Amino acid sequence: MKGKITIVGLGPGNKSMMTQEVVNVIDNATDIIGYSTYIKRIKPSKNLNLYSSDNRDEPQRAKDAINLALEGKNVVVISSGDPGVFAMASVVFETIDNGPDLWHEIDIVVLPGVTAMLAAAARVGAPLGHDFCAINLSNNLKPWHLIEKRIRLSIECDFVIALYNPRSKSRPNEFRKTLDILRETCDDNRYILFAKSVFSDEENINIIQLKNAKEDMADMQTLVIIGSSLSKVIIRNKQDFFYTPRVSI
Amino acid sequence: MKGKITIVGLGPGNKSMMTQEVVNVIDNATDIIGYSTYIKRIKPSKNLNLYSSDNRDEPQRAKDAINLALEGKNVVVISSGDPGVFAMASVVFETIDNGPDLWHEIDIVVLPGVTAMLAAAARVGAPLGHDFCAINLSNNLKPWHLIEKRIRLSIECDFVIALYNPRSKSRPNEFRKTLDILRETCDDNRYILFAKSVFSDEENINIIQLKNAKEDMADMQTLVIIGSSLSKVIIRNKQDFFYTPRVSI
Repeated sequence: MKGKITIVGLGPGNKSMMTQEVVNVIDNATDIIGYSTYIKRIKPSKNLNLYSSDNRDEPQRAKDAINLALEGKNVVVISSGDPGVFAMASVVFETIDNGPDLWHEIDIVVLPGVTAMLAAAARVGAPLGHDFCAINLSNNLKPWHLIEKRIRLSIECDFVIALYNPRSKSRPNEFRKTLDILRETCDDNRYILFAKSVFSDEENINIIQLKNAKEDMADMQTLVIIGSSLSKVIIRNKQDFFYTPRVSI
Repeated sequence: MKGKITIVGLGPGNKSMMTQEVVNVIDNATDIIGYSTYIKRIKPSKNLNLYSSDNRDEPQRAKDAINLALEGKNVVVISSGDPGVFAMASVVFETIDNGPDLWHEIDIVVLPGVTAMLAAAARVGAPLGHDFCAINLSNNLKPWHLIEKRIRLSIECDFVIALYNPRSKSRPNEFRKTLDILRETCDDNRYILFAKSVFSDEENINIIQLKNAKEDMADMQTLVIIGSSLSKVIIRNKQDFFYTPRVSI
């Protein structure tokens, strides 16, 4: 089998946050496929074929990548952040797993990237400095009762909680219900980070206490980090720092 | 205040896995401080001061970095992986928080990196493709009963679980007890990834079912990922793929 799939993470908004390996792979690519918003981050060139696709149809995008590989192409699949965290890598492997046996032997390389929670955390300090979890708040592929169970048990764990895809126009309710759970289970001075489009020109950072948090502070460009009971804020003249101490007794 | 602290993540073993921004910062640094093993990854040069320190005394390393900044130096603190995940960033912020008010205004920039669980996941597929948590298994700074509670509740959440610092010569027991909890609560065909020194010449990858897992498969260079009940393995002629589907009903 001649073709190959390389699934890469572009990191957060800024090109300087890509790994050197990902930059090399993109610079030498002949065929790149991805969601149109991410394809726009790739510089077009004469010998480069760009395949832009709709965000909603990730399984079709995975099939397109597989077909290009079966044709002998060395195809690069791009995601923002890290491709293994709520992104294209698991879609590709799921599609291959459910496909014919021949597909199982396709060469696939995954190149990691800086996922959104690491980028958001870095912009304010070290809120992920102690045990944490990452929950995708979209209920497109799982029922709300499972999301609710995970949030409640994560609070019981006293995890720091990173919420991916917290809220969209078509899904306005999950984040509102999450805030309701927090108000029921946490002190109202619990800190929450709303980090929008980090490392890009549209970056917007807010560290808010639960009592002041509002549902419309989150959208699809926002990564939310809910501090643990021990997370602290250092008040400063400049942007405050937000961190979670390593010690918990 | 003239000095500045830049806390950077070197990513996993291979230099090509650093972000371009981190490479730039290191290439232009005058003063770099870090654990001796990571300092060895930095190329010495005439105008570069390297401060190598013991792994056990992270608070002292943070104080040394702060003192260099107070002297007006632009000091770079290095961690492997991402500096915000069980690494130097939270130590620096904690030290600053507990220090005099003057310290709170020190300029600090954190540059994220590819943390170990993302690197390990990428080498085998996409085991972190669904909701997950990251737990530091070291009981140096927290009691075992808290670790145990988090592991048990994370299994109840059906999270994929990434274990950092699973086992060392001086802490042989936590990982053994973790395996005992898994044997009590999970099917014995649950998949576990042992990923040692990924993206380095010493890389060693094992995907094992719980029934075959042994405590000595983990050490301080190993990142362990315990699959959720839905995580799957694609058997191949080459290295098997390990992934977690996005869907959970």
